[in-house]
Amino acid sequence: MKYCSDCGSEVEYKIPGDDNRHRHVCLGCKTIHYQNPKIVAGCIPEQAGKILLCKRAIEPQYGKWTLPAGFMENDESTTQAALRETLEEANATVVIHDLYTVINLTHVNQVYLIYRAALTEQGFSPGAESLEVELYGEEEIPWDELAFPVMRETLRLYFDDIRTGSYTIRTGEIIRNDSGYEFTLHT
Amino acid sequence: MKYCSDCGSEVEYKIPGDDNRHRHVCLGCKTIHYQNPKIVAGCIPEQAGKILLCKRAIEPQYGKWTLPAGFMENDESTTQAALRETLEEANATVVIHDLYTVINLTHVNQVYLIYRAALTEQGFSPGAESLEVELYGEEEIPWDELAFPVMRETLRLYFDDIRTGSYTIRTGEIIRNDSGYEFTLHT
Repeated sequence: MKYCSDCGSEVEYKIPGDDNRHRHVCLGCKTIHYQNPKIVAGCIPEQAGKILLCKRAIEPQYGKWTLPAGFMENDESTTQAALRETLEEANATVVIHDLYTVINLTHVNQVYLIYRAALTEQGFSPGAESLEVELYGEEEIPWDELAFPVMRETLRLYFDDIRTGSYTIRTGEIIRNDSGYEFTLHT
Repeated sequence: MKYCSDCGSEVEYKIPGDDNRHRHVCLGCKTIHYQNPKIVAGCIPEQAGKILLCKRAIEPQYGKWTLPAGFMENDESTTQAALRETLEEANATVVIHDLYTVINLTHVNQVYLIYRAALTEQGFSPGAESLEVELYGEEEIPWDELAFPVMRETLRLYFDDIRTGSYTIRTGEIIRNDSGYEFTLHT
């Protein structure tokens, strides 16, 4: 951020008087421009024990597989966002069930909210941001071709829970480190 | 938003070519400026069945009571945000337990994430944004002087759960209407 979105003056990056963090502050109108984490909302569309995955047609991670998910928009709820992303990426309709994972990705200022969901019988096909969409059982999932650690961990937890028949919401954190990442469960 | 924060040119509010929502698009460098909901993170600090509330020293809702909570910042996790807000508003340290409510406030583009928490023995006092901080049992809570519906509903659920001894995460939505608001539980 170099310019004030309100008045067009230059901004400086400093700690405002009654604050303890660096902010972009307008040199003209003095507006403080806060920046906050974004929510990525998505779901685990299940049908007969198989999960719908999307092969990404966009960067980052072009060609890798992921659960349908994306940035939550203004004027929608988290479940509406999960429904919309699934429709956009997989032309699929789902019934959203319980919230399943809430995972912090502090290094990119994102919080993932992933819901369990039931894929309806209306079919699916690649949306504009997907190359392919496919139903996978646990053994068939391209574990080494998944786009994001947060989705790998969510899917691992999910298939563990399928075996016990009891689904528990998990909250946690993905922390990048030299060897890749560490996944810490909070609950 | 009137000016591009990257180059200072004017922006127009339009639907970009491959999009279906209005965005602020720079007339100069063509950058699309997305706007997304914010997370408000907080907690229910409990000690011996009583809950720590803060009387607000700032607008909106100056002089009304609320749970410690505030906008999540970049470079922190949701639990770190809840801890920080509790320290800032009530000079209190807590041990964060399970996530308890995830409530959408679509009319203000906010998602509240409230955790259960145990207040430590290190005491509490009003922070800069609080006039008073006080421990209240269910019967003592100033129910008519609470600042926000989302906190009233979270506290109601919590005291219901205290009676049963079993805490369940709830997700839902507060919808503004002519007579005030409607609270819908998703799960």
